[in-house]
Amino acid sequence: MLDFRLIKTSKETGSKSSRARLGQLKTDHGPILTPIFMPVGTQGSVKGITKEDLDHCGAQIILGNTYHLYLRPGPEVIEHMEGLHAFSAWKKPLLTDSGGFQFFSLAKLAKFSDEGVKFQSHIDGSRHFFSPERAVEIQMILGSDIMMSLDWCMGHPATERQTMEALVKTTNWAQRGYDYWQTAGGKNNLFGIVQGGMFKELRSLSARQITGIDFPGFAIGGLSVGEPTELMYEMADHTLPLLPENKPRYIMGVGTPENLVELVDMGCDMFDCVMPSRNARNGQLFTTTGTINIYNAKFKMDKAPIDEACQCYTCQNYSRAYLRHLYKSRELLSYRLNTIHNLYYYLDLMAKMRHAIQADQFLEFKRDFFAKRRT
Amino acid sequence: MLDFRLIKTSKETGSKSSRARLGQLKTDHGPILTPIFMPVGTQGSVKGITKEDLDHCGAQIILGNTYHLYLRPGPEVIEHMEGLHAFSAWKKPLLTDSGGFQFFSLAKLAKFSDEGVKFQSHIDGSRHFFSPERAVEIQMILGSDIMMSLDWCMGHPATERQTMEALVKTTNWAQRGYDYWQTAGGKNNLFGIVQGGMFKELRSLSARQITGIDFPGFAIGGLSVGEPTELMYEMADHTLPLLPENKPRYIMGVGTPENLVELVDMGCDMFDCVMPSRNARNGQLFTTTGTINIYNAKFKMDKAPIDEACQCYTCQNYSRAYLRHLYKSRELLSYRLNTIHNLYYYLDLMAKMRHAIQADQFLEFKRDFFAKRRT
Repeated sequence: MLDFRLIKTSKETGSKSSRARLGQLKTDHGPILTPIFMPVGTQGSVKGITKEDLDHCGAQIILGNTYHLYLRPGPEVIEHMEGLHAFSAWKKPLLTDSGGFQFFSLAKLAKFSDEGVKFQSHIDGSRHFFSPERAVEIQMILGSDIMMSLDWCMGHPATERQTMEALVKTTNWAQRGYDYWQTAGGKNNLFGIVQGGMFKELRSLSARQITGIDFPGFAIGGLSVGEPTELMYEMADHTLPLLPENKPRYIMGVGTPENLVELVDMGCDMFDCVMPSRNARNGQLFTTTGTINIYNAKFKMDKAPIDEACQCYTCQNYSRAYLRHLYKSRELLSYRLNTIHNLYYYLDLMAKMRHAIQADQFLEFKRDFFAKRRT
Repeated sequence: MLDFRLIKTSKETGSKSSRARLGQLKTDHGPILTPIFMPVGTQGSVKGITKEDLDHCGAQIILGNTYHLYLRPGPEVIEHMEGLHAFSAWKKPLLTDSGGFQFFSLAKLAKFSDEGVKFQSHIDGSRHFFSPERAVEIQMILGSDIMMSLDWCMGHPATERQTMEALVKTTNWAQRGYDYWQTAGGKNNLFGIVQGGMFKELRSLSARQITGIDFPGFAIGGLSVGEPTELMYEMADHTLPLLPENKPRYIMGVGTPENLVELVDMGCDMFDCVMPSRNARNGQLFTTTGTINIYNAKFKMDKAPIDEACQCYTCQNYSRAYLRHLYKSRELLSYRLNTIHNLYYYLDLMAKMRHAIQADQFLEFKRDFFAKRRT
């Protein structure tokens, strides 16, 4: 069972009190200080960077996608290679999702029934079936430290009736996945996922049902699926307090640096998102004072690093002018250097938030963060 | 002026004596032990890898392409950034070619006259002109430790008359480039290039004319342009002895590991080729016992590294199965890990040849190399 220790809950007072919390998760592959951001290694690799780069960026845990790894190289390969850790040579903790989000976002013709999800591969159109048990079984083969229950993720907008149907299946699947996991020995950890779309009532129902199962941790799914940011905040703010205080809370697939700061303030512990790595590959780089497009002509002769305040490998070695040249020339090194910078930025932001919570200065940090990012 | 010291000439005897030589080149950015292979950093970056990766691979000097860097980011940017070393953060020696090969291989509608070469950019079709003086001037802006004279490179096959016309222009341009360089102060180093296609008589004429100019080093151009390997060897074997013993000898754009061993045996000191990096990106990896295609299905479950005998980062950390998965998934990390391996292989091969020459065991090394690569 996961060992989660709440080190500190933000004790600040003021015009508005913070619910930010500092914690430590222990896994078989080492500890994780929360709040934490998890870089996404969809196919068993965080695009363009090595484990040493991830160490440099401060990554404590990375994410792998069960849907992708199931299709390629396939569970039989990863089983033979003795798990995703050994296969990818990543020795720190790993979290895998269940495939639920990809059935919503990527797979062709996903068909949901009480039994599970039939889908076609986005690679070759081949037909497959995931039951909640199978989703856990595959993740046990992957050997991830934190596995996720199979869920039905709705897009936005969705009707109350659609959302409720997905919620009901999500709850049943969560119970079946949990039972399968327990019967199989209960190794590693399995998290439950709260759904309920953009309906507070349904979020409450889902939270009650999912937290009624003794998962070692809980996630909020179905956010950042096309809704306005304010609505996402509203749902998170409503749902986070419904999750048990003594277990880790994970909001899936979110978000911008601003999102992370707001959601940490609301008491969220774990995040993952492709934004820092994907945006890096599109030339969008995060800085203390805002986000820049490195291909902008104004950087043509710019000798400064991306961010003077940044200690990452890229900022310590390369100018904006060189990075612009690499990006314009579509050099592979561009994607790598940009990715290192953006992930460093995200993970450094999390470290700064942890320090601020520790020092009872989270709201001060937050004010300062927004003041700088707005300039 | 370049300081080149011939440390040792192979003294072996046997059924055939070797002309392999060990030398040291001194440049403003440090020394280079020869024979050496120079990784190609066409656009100011060796595709997908950093300077630290290049250090790990054992790179002493890398190559930049004047044609590409002239078109993008442009000499005005690199001048403002204080040269290619500062721009790319590469602190070791740099060699730049003159653009001559790209006029043959890449530029649109290159037109050669006595004055120089008119050409259109392969990027945007814009019109440009390189005189031999301008080719040197741009390289002086790049600040490379070794610059190359503008030459006219012929393809294969070419007639004697065509080849001779190109040779005559190459000689005149070499003299004009040399004079320009001398007048401008003679900093860094400018090499002359011997042409003459597949005609020994013309190679002899070109060698006599080019070595008649007091360049600090000499290259053989116009090889590996489509001719059979045996013909390439014949031309190199004929031409290398015509170059002065006390200056470095560089064969441009060659070649396979086997080519390097044969040409070192003939007394060549310097090489460059896109083969190790380009083939890496196409999944072709060099090993002690031959070349493998990493996408081959037989590697699907293979826990072994690319080459058990290899000490490179890739082989020390990753299995063939994982590298096959990355390649099949088109993961950016694939190109990087493969490139590190192939460049390490090439540079380690050069180091082994240097050690063998030092130990008077070059021919023994060569026999062993071919025996293993054939299995």
